[in-house]
Amino acid sequence: MAELRTVFVAGGAGFLGSHFADRLLATPAIERLTVYDNFSSGHRWHLAAHAGDPRLTIVEADILDEERLVAAVAGHQTVIHLASNPDIARAAVDPDVDFRQGTALTRNVAEAARKCGVELVLYASGSGVYGDRGDALLAEDAPSEPVSTYGASKLAGEALLAAYAHMFGIRARAFRFGNVVGPRQTHGVGYDFLRKLRADPRRLAVLGDGSQAKPYVHAGDVVDAVLLAAEREASPFAVYNVATDDLLPVREIAALAVDCLGLDPATVEVSFGDSPRGWPGDVPVVRLDSTRIRGLGWRPRHDSRQAMAAALAAMRDEAHTEGAR
Amino acid sequence: MAELRTVFVAGGAGFLGSHFADRLLATPAIERLTVYDNFSSGHRWHLAAHAGDPRLTIVEADILDEERLVAAVAGHQTVIHLASNPDIARAAVDPDVDFRQGTALTRNVAEAARKCGVELVLYASGSGVYGDRGDALLAEDAPSEPVSTYGASKLAGEALLAAYAHMFGIRARAFRFGNVVGPRQTHGVGYDFLRKLRADPRRLAVLGDGSQAKPYVHAGDVVDAVLLAAEREASPFAVYNVATDDLLPVREIAALAVDCLGLDPATVEVSFGDSPRGWPGDVPVVRLDSTRIRGLGWRPRHDSRQAMAAALAAMRDEAHTEGAR
Repeated sequence: MAELRTVFVAGGAGFLGSHFADRLLATPAIERLTVYDNFSSGHRWHLAAHAGDPRLTIVEADILDEERLVAAVAGHQTVIHLASNPDIARAAVDPDVDFRQGTALTRNVAEAARKCGVELVLYASGSGVYGDRGDALLAEDAPSEPVSTYGASKLAGEALLAAYAHMFGIRARAFRFGNVVGPRQTHGVGYDFLRKLRADPRRLAVLGDGSQAKPYVHAGDVVDAVLLAAEREASPFAVYNVATDDLLPVREIAALAVDCLGLDPATVEVSFGDSPRGWPGDVPVVRLDSTRIRGLGWRPRHDSRQAMAAALAAMRDEAHTEGAR
Repeated sequence: MAELRTVFVAGGAGFLGSHFADRLLATPAIERLTVYDNFSSGHRWHLAAHAGDPRLTIVEADILDEERLVAAVAGHQTVIHLASNPDIARAAVDPDVDFRQGTALTRNVAEAARKCGVELVLYASGSGVYGDRGDALLAEDAPSEPVSTYGASKLAGEALLAAYAHMFGIRARAFRFGNVVGPRQTHGVGYDFLRKLRADPRRLAVLGDGSQAKPYVHAGDVVDAVLLAAEREASPFAVYNVATDDLLPVREIAALAVDCLGLDPATVEVSFGDSPRGWPGDVPVVRLDSTRIRGLGWRPRHDSRQAMAAALAAMRDEAHTEGAR
């Protein structure tokens, strides 16, 4: 990882950011890691394991505060941009949220990178850029037609970083993740199911008809993919799908959640909605072709079921200690 | 044009907006046409021909003034969104200009359309969404990798309108124009060449090495295409390339400009730069496949050379009367 000596992580106190911190701070080459987060959905306990590491600096500030952001980015070679609106379904009633907490953030990150002479930007995009393509297996060059403002903000961010890469000599890499899950997760379908079952272990109401089927990729596998792509290829801009090849239906996630809490499935009434979409803008089926990143040597260590089961088990145990935080 | 009875044109005092006004106000079905423009690059003389038409309202205000915009959009079924940063080359020194005067404008237009129950949004996108694909003939489903912030802002606008179309039941159509030229143009390569030759008829300095070759489409042909697509198809979102099939090299535009002003080519020293790009983010060759819009029956009445020659002749004559305005 020649370039990864001084790393700035925008939105770095979120769940995925904490996995980057774990991996990067385990690397002797890392001289400096700055986590910049407004803690709207990030948490200090995500980074608690590294409290004594002098290489880690945590800046509590908003990416929309451009002056502060530029000052904080200065002196870093690499920016990992993970900041995003964590509540995808909220756009149905507040569609501008993905502009304010998505598109506008990436604009500020790109400007800060340009002004500070950053060499490499690694951007967490998402499968939402493709829109609803049925059960087609989607490679990176498939047409994009977002059906959610979340997907639109991710595509807008990719487009902006591509332009900055070509115009200003910043290398940029965008990663279209399947749904990332893992320890320290604080949102998402698995998190919601555990929360609901804790509140009432006798019933679980699923958003949508349960037929939604998506890939789930473990946060550790995502970190592998991003750091692998960071060190390869000199092209100004590249996009990579990062997903497992299998799909996990929402029904099975419900069963995994029931099992994870040690509940007897016969005593839990799981109910479903009528729509194949969990919320307006939800995409019922997502299949991503990750041939490109696999071509760099990436192999996920967990399939979707393993990733989800590991995430659920970790979230269950973390919740037990939540009062102590 | 069943739906085109009450039309709001964002950025409607620009050169292309004036061609929409001409066509729409010649249509008896039009009950109301509102032109909303901050006159940063639009002109009152663009709409002077319709000064007495009671159906036309001109609102001088900024699209970034969201409250004002929403109030003005209310009561219109259709929005034509033409507002954009007119100075593409400026981004090399001020890359944020295309965010402020592009991406952010489209966000406000989309929100206004949603809040006001607009049925149809017709959006002026551009070939810049594709990026630099060499001499490949590009259909609408070709991959997008913008190399300019201008192209990035156009793609961000398309993505946002696609999401709003799918989430909120607004029909939206995006048009990736080849370079639009015609009477009342106030920027672009032809405009620049006339201005330079008027300042010094003995020499013409061309940005780039003159090898750039692009399609040029007449504003009247563009209006035809947009209004045709407006009345066809019920799908939430669609994208159309709108361009002539031929390419006009910049060298030939220089010769057309010299000829248009009645200058002797032997007395004009035309000089070129070293780069195939006129400015950072310029794309040397653009070839758009307009099969989709042709499938709706569109046939441009001018090829690239005819469109450019007509535009140059009109701009020459308009400049003669500029003092009288």
